[in-house]
Amino acid sequence: MIHDTVTIGDNTKIGEQVIIERNVCIGDNVTIGNHVIIKENTRVGDYVTIDDLSVIGKTPSSNQTMARKPGRSISPLVIHEHVNVGCSTVLYKGSTIHQGVFIGDLSSVRENVSIGENSIVGRGAMVEMNTIIGKHVTIQTGAYITADMIIEDYVFIGPCFSSSNDKYMGEGNYKHQGPIIKSEAKIGNNATLLPGITIGRKAVIGAGAVVTKDVLDSYVVVGSPARKIDYKTTTQE
Amino acid sequence: MIHDTVTIGDNTKIGEQVIIERNVCIGDNVTIGNHVIIKENTRVGDYVTIDDLSVIGKTPSSNQTMARKPGRSISPLVIHEHVNVGCSTVLYKGSTIHQGVFIGDLSSVRENVSIGENSIVGRGAMVEMNTIIGKHVTIQTGAYITADMIIEDYVFIGPCFSSSNDKYMGEGNYKHQGPIIKSEAKIGNNATLLPGITIGRKAVIGAGAVVTKDVLDSYVVVGSPARKIDYKTTTQE
Amino acid sequence: MIHDTVTIGDNTKIGEQVIIERNVCIGDNVTIGNHVIIKENTRVGDYVTIDDLSVIGKTPSSNQTMARKPGRSISPLVIHEHVNVGCSTVLYKGSTIHQGVFIGDLSSVRENVSIGENSIVGRGAMVEMNTIIGKHVTIQTGAYITADMIIEDYVFIGPCFSSSNDKYMGEGNYKHQGPIIKSEAKIGNNATLLPGITIGRKAVIGAGAVVTKDVLDSYVVVGSPARKIDYKTTTQE
Repeated sequence: MIHDTVTIGDNTKIGEQVIIERNVCIGDNVTIGNHVIIKENTRVGDYVTIDDLSVIGKTPSSNQTMARKPGRSISPLVIHEHVNVGCSTVLYKGSTIHQGVFIGDLSSVRENVSIGENSIVGRGAMVEMNTIIGKHVTIQTGAYITADMIIEDYVFIGPCFSSSNDKYMGEGNYKHQGPIIKSEAKIGNNATLLPGITIGRKAVIGAGAVVTKDVLDSYVVVGSPARKIDYKTTTQE
Repeated sequence: MIHDTVTIGDNTKIGEQVIIERNVCIGDNVTIGNHVIIKENTRVGDYVTIDDLSVIGKTPSSNQTMARKPGRSISPLVIHEHVNVGCSTVLYKGSTIHQGVFIGDLSSVRENVSIGENSIVGRGAMVEMNTIIGKHVTIQTGAYITADMIIEDYVFIGPCFSSSNDKYMGEGNYKHQGPIIKSEAKIGNNATLLPGITIGRKAVIGAGAVVTKDVLDSYVVVGSPARKIDYKTTTQE
Repeated sequence: MIHDTVTIGDNTKIGEQVIIERNVCIGDNVTIGNHVIIKENTRVGDYVTIDDLSVIGKTPSSNQTMARKPGRSISPLVIHEHVNVGCSTVLYKGSTIHQGVFIGDLSSVRENVSIGENSIVGRGAMVEMNTIIGKHVTIQTGAYITADMIIEDYVFIGPCFSSSNDKYMGEGNYKHQGPIIKSEAKIGNNATLLPGITIGRKAVIGAGAVVTKDVLDSYVVVGSPARKIDYKTTTQE
């Protein structure tokens, strides 16, 4: 069912059994797959593709064990031009997906996230709330981007990357802070970042490393806990 | 299609293109999203929310390489009051989801699992069969809860946590045993637990730790392999 | 909607709201769940089961940040007899799923992949393009199989396994090469493999190990970085 108040541009194709709620605005030359659900007020730019079975513009919810309740007034989800959204994704309201972004199948992006131009969120990757992702960032398959992170431009994050933002693991009123990853840093697959640390510009984190403290610009660190190794390299070893 | 034998309570809202099979019983004030599929005999309590595109009450299947075949007679899935189930989840029959539980998008819970009151199963988390999860447990995004685990009350499990239950990795007739995590223990993100070990009460496991043997109550362990460090702390470092 | 050109065998059951595109060929005794989408030209063998909400035969796409664009002419997806595909999976065109394979819920298999007879791809597992998987391979829940891997027969891969194929992490024109895992090797849960390494026949990789170089036949390695330990064992410790 497509609500009466929905606006749809020229040359836009809508698949079968799609549900589009009220006040959604869809641009020109958009392709919407089958069984897609677009929630109210979402904005979809020109030349966007949304594949089958995705949920676009979901409102966050919670239970009583959760410390952080979703905010009451969240702005609509805005998807800019030429964005490609995969199958079976779940994108929340309150986020902005900039031009040319690619979002893989089975991934999810929470509320109040910004994803910069031409960045990639891999299949099965999860991006938590309040995180800012720059331009031309690559987040590979299955990577976990915690809440309250800052990821600058041209960062590369390997598959199965893990981060966290809660030093006290659910206890107390500690302010949550995810890691900060400076521009052009590269993080190997299945690396682990502790809360609140900063990864310097052009730093390289080895695959499987467990990074417990800040890494300076251009440093290469490997191991558990991660320690600096003596050469600047562009490899993961 | 909603089968003739389905019972639906007062003030319950059913989305579009929902399929509800025979003998399903749905309480009052329930909200069922769009494209949801509820399999036969499932029980859904009052004030439950099930988001779009979820499969509720799936029957397990197998192939000939699998050592453990699903049991023949599995009881229905029972979802108690005030449970919140996300989008694109897959919940199997034979499990009980207690009051106030939150189950995130794109997650899955297998058969013969019990999840205690007000616990959280994060987005993309996977819970295997025969596992018992206590009350007020937090299982964060992408965590993997193997089969045959026991997780006591108030445990915190960080994102991307990994566990296993098969010491011989598919070989022989070894009895499977997942880890046992005692109450109020905290496990950092991307930590790895070996089969059959016990994590003591209020123990803390550092992010990225690889835990190869039992951890005593209140111990803090970090590293690969995980070793005790000398202070009791509530942080991940 | 089922296209006019689709052929469907005897005793085949099709769920509700299924979409089957043109030139799809479905065998006898097949069971297709609800809300399933089967893309054009896909071949589905006899006695195959495809569960609810799956997308079968997807065409790959990309954005301008991606180094590797999908090929232009990709052959159809071929699913052989007795394959079992879970709920909410995404299988790409150009791959061959051999007889008796089991593919878990919420998993995905990219283009130009071959999965051998009776192998298992666990729930939430992701298999990237151009990877060859042998017979009777077990890939457990949430494992990440990178592109350009070779996995021989009877390999066991534990849950949350991580691999990568890009030594330079997105930089330059390096030829991508995933790890090669020889027959009967066993890899523990949450182990990390660096690009291009070879894991020998019957080798055992401990849970949480970070494997940075080749492992010889029957060697057992553990730790970060992984080092040989002195006994041949079939356990993960």
